[in-house]
Amino acid sequence: MSRENTMTKLNITDTTLRDAHQSLAATRMRTEDMLGLAREMEKAGFWSVEAWGGATFDTCIRYLNDDPWDRLRTLREIFVKTPIQMLLRGQNLVGYRHYPDDVVDKFVTAASENGISVFRVFDALNDIRNMQRSMAAVIDTGDHLQGTICYTTSPVHSIKGFISMAEELYALGCSSICIKDMAGLIMPEAARELITGIKAKLDIPVCLHTHSTSGIAPMSYQAAIEAGVDILDTAMSPFAGGTSQPATESIVASLIGTSRDTQIPLSTLRSIKLAACNIRCKYDCLIDPISVRIDSDVLVYQLPGGMISNLVSQLKEQNALDKMDDVLLEIPKVRADLGYPPLVTPTSQIVGTQAVLNVLMGGRYKTVTNEVRDYLKGLYGKSPKPLDDALVTSIIGDIPRITCRPADTLEPIYEKMKADAEAQGLVKKEEDVLTYILYPAIAPAFLKGEKKAEAFPAAPTTTAGIVPADYDIPRSMEVE
Amino acid sequence: MSRENTMTKLNITDTTLRDAHQSLAATRMRTEDMLGLAREMEKAGFWSVEAWGGATFDTCIRYLNDDPWDRLRTLREIFVKTPIQMLLRGQNLVGYRHYPDDVVDKFVTAASENGISVFRVFDALNDIRNMQRSMAAVIDTGDHLQGTICYTTSPVHSIKGFISMAEELYALGCSSICIKDMAGLIMPEAARELITGIKAKLDIPVCLHTHSTSGIAPMSYQAAIEAGVDILDTAMSPFAGGTSQPATESIVASLIGTSRDTQIPLSTLRSIKLAACNIRCKYDCLIDPISVRIDSDVLVYQLPGGMISNLVSQLKEQNALDKMDDVLLEIPKVRADLGYPPLVTPTSQIVGTQAVLNVLMGGRYKTVTNEVRDYLKGLYGKSPKPLDDALVTSIIGDIPRITCRPADTLEPIYEKMKADAEAQGLVKKEEDVLTYILYPAIAPAFLKGEKKAEAFPAAPTTTAGIVPADYDIPRSMEVE
Ligand SMILES: [Co+2]
Ligand SMILES: [Co+2]
Repeated sequence: MSRENTMTKLNITDTTLRDAHQSLAATRMRTEDMLGLAREMEKAGFWSVEAWGGATFDTCIRYLNDDPWDRLRTLREIFVKTPIQMLLRGQNLVGYRHYPDDVVDKFVTAASENGISVFRVFDALNDIRNMQRSMAAVIDTGDHLQGTICYTTSPVHSIKGFISMAEELYALGCSSICIKDMAGLIMPEAARELITGIKAKLDIPVCLHTHSTSGIAPMSYQAAIEAGVDILDTAMSPFAGGTSQPATESIVASLIGTSRDTQIPLSTLRSIKLAACNIRCKYDCLIDPISVRIDSDVLVYQLPGGMISNLVSQLKEQNALDKMDDVLLEIPKVRADLGYPPLVTPTSQIVGTQAVLNVLMGGRYKTVTNEVRDYLKGLYGKSPKPLDDALVTSIIGDIPRITCRPADTLEPIYEKMKADAEAQGLVKKEEDVLTYILYPAIAPAFLKGEKKAEAFPAAPTTTAGIVPADYDIPRSMEVE
Repeated sequence: MSRENTMTKLNITDTTLRDAHQSLAATRMRTEDMLGLAREMEKAGFWSVEAWGGATFDTCIRYLNDDPWDRLRTLREIFVKTPIQMLLRGQNLVGYRHYPDDVVDKFVTAASENGISVFRVFDALNDIRNMQRSMAAVIDTGDHLQGTICYTTSPVHSIKGFISMAEELYALGCSSICIKDMAGLIMPEAARELITGIKAKLDIPVCLHTHSTSGIAPMSYQAAIEAGVDILDTAMSPFAGGTSQPATESIVASLIGTSRDTQIPLSTLRSIKLAACNIRCKYDCLIDPISVRIDSDVLVYQLPGGMISNLVSQLKEQNALDKMDDVLLEIPKVRADLGYPPLVTPTSQIVGTQAVLNVLMGGRYKTVTNEVRDYLKGLYGKSPKPLDDALVTSIIGDIPRITCRPADTLEPIYEKMKADAEAQGLVKKEEDVLTYILYPAIAPAFLKGEKKAEAFPAAPTTTAGIVPADYDIPRSMEVE
């Protein structure tokens, strides 16, 4: 196609080892199951494999008795040619609150030394001050720094604003820009405009990350390909679709013979897919059938799919499932009160939980979570829209708020915590100190070897791959 | 977008009541379950609803004890504004073999009188001679005639060839052209070229029909929208994706605010979706989880998803599942021997079953099905590539073959069969004669009221809608 003639091949970041199982299977994939799959993935020629960070660190030590640092080193032995990518939550690293700068520096250095070559850095509020320290630390390692824009829609978000943010990220030394659409909300035309807009201003590779939740992701990827996107995030088909990414195989196949051909052979993808099918079988009991289905509620409520199902769980525990509609109406109001944060970890939890409380407690902000309190104090950073002073005061009273970079209020803690961990006999390797600092409540038992991997839940099992389930589903040969 | 400024709104044909449940649930949706859904669908402003034809007729009388003519009349009472569309297999009507012209005429007239307003007519071989009589009959009714190109890829199929076929269909009086991609094989660039090519030559609305099996369908729809496609086939999200069509809600939402906006409100779609969710719950036991998942094998084998799972069933029954790879290699060879027919009912069955026999019987064409014999004799029509004479002779011997329009060899049978049916006391309404002619083996018991609807199979059940399954799936609030 003539319009694509000047474009080069499309690159693929495969997310099967991080976002795909985080989205579909509560981040429960174990290191031992990743290895055979990783060996096949190494052959594909992916631009990178996202395999670490996000919620994987927490899940490893909380549920899987799986050392995240060991996982990384083991994967690094397999991925010789393929760069391993991690998702870094800016100053939150792989946790849910800001850590002091000395911890950020140590963490990034350790991640790099243990095998990360591409760091995707984001902040839930798009507050670049929360990304600066970790970005500088990545640049110091010499690794690839991918600056991230959290995509969302609101009265204060616009294509123009996102392009400005890309320019800021570029000025800070990013090697590529990621448009991160965690809810699967980006429409084809918006993707086209945003990618075209960034590429018109900046000579930098652009990556688009989205989720298939609403069924629109493949359409937006198609528009993005035409607009010249450099990298797309995809997952192998057994872990693709629904709340995960579009399938790697589909995107690769769709471009064969075009100027944007990924050059990844379908036969290689087939070997990877077979390895992934086996794992999918094992984890099927962890996958809610709903999460793999197209969920058009996302389009109505503009909420990430995982958030909706989590709200259902919260309401069920309170025996208040009948309040679901009220909660769904309350969420956009809370989000507006908080200045329209993008809904991504941790703001998705902060907004969702407060909306539930506002509905169940018989009055808005009668009960306020600590997280909302901290948010209103400015501890998470600057909200996209400035907060309403009167509203903030009415909720948390007339207490001091901060306007500086939140981490500027934090004292260094690494050496003190290291001494503390050593005194408890928790440190076998230097990285154990970071594990302890990030998860002080659960790390001690884990580091002492007192944890066991959680068992798989008993659940109806189904089969994967081309062999159909054993129960008697009528089959028709009708193909029309 | 400037390129779309001259284009009008996109139209939607919703397939939930025909292709979606044919593809996902072996065509088992009962009339009683369709009614509430249909009442909601009537409010959307769809260009048409595909709700009859294809395999629904057969399934109604064979499994559901559900009169297809009553179904149509009942739906017609609900769909007052929305045209009801049917899939007509050309001279095969809603069966698997050619019927004489008098039966074709009677069937089309009866379908029109009972409520069909849009006839989508196709032939599995793209042999227009097999479509001419039914197309003429549709024109006589004054209803909308949609001529269909069965899309496939092979050494003898090309964009140019398909455009020529569109011109032939146009010359025969079609009001619109459907590109029917039953296997989900059409790539975005092919969709763009074919739609652009047809619209450059002909001033006629073009519809694209595909299946999400390989995960590429939404990408091809996006390319089709940009190329100016007039109508897209979609299914409501509870019955969308996988071997069915892309979701109606996704396509509609993706175009809001663009020049191709469908003007269908998302709130209306939400009501339809909730009605569809309830039905999906009921039919979940009939839906193989594999059929809703992206199946990249389709890309490797170029076979429709339903065909692969059906082959697995056939091989299982023969205790020969280990021969699957051999069969998958044999299918393209049989297809080549038969002159590259598109794989759609009935050619998908004909090719698939013969490939199984060629592998299991220890020699190619040692055993030949009657259908292959008839095919080689020319009884199905003209193959896309002329058959190899020597090969045909080696398989069926030196027996007479035909080159004329196959139905020219068939004597009228309507009056004789009518008398026969009346003598058996089967005819309560004129349409019962057609039911008897189409399915003489199973219609008598059905028409005598001796059939019962088959029971739903006992199977693990899951939930649908936003309420998650009751079993204990770990949930994460991580949204990244
Ligand atoms: Co179809
Ligand atoms: Co994500």
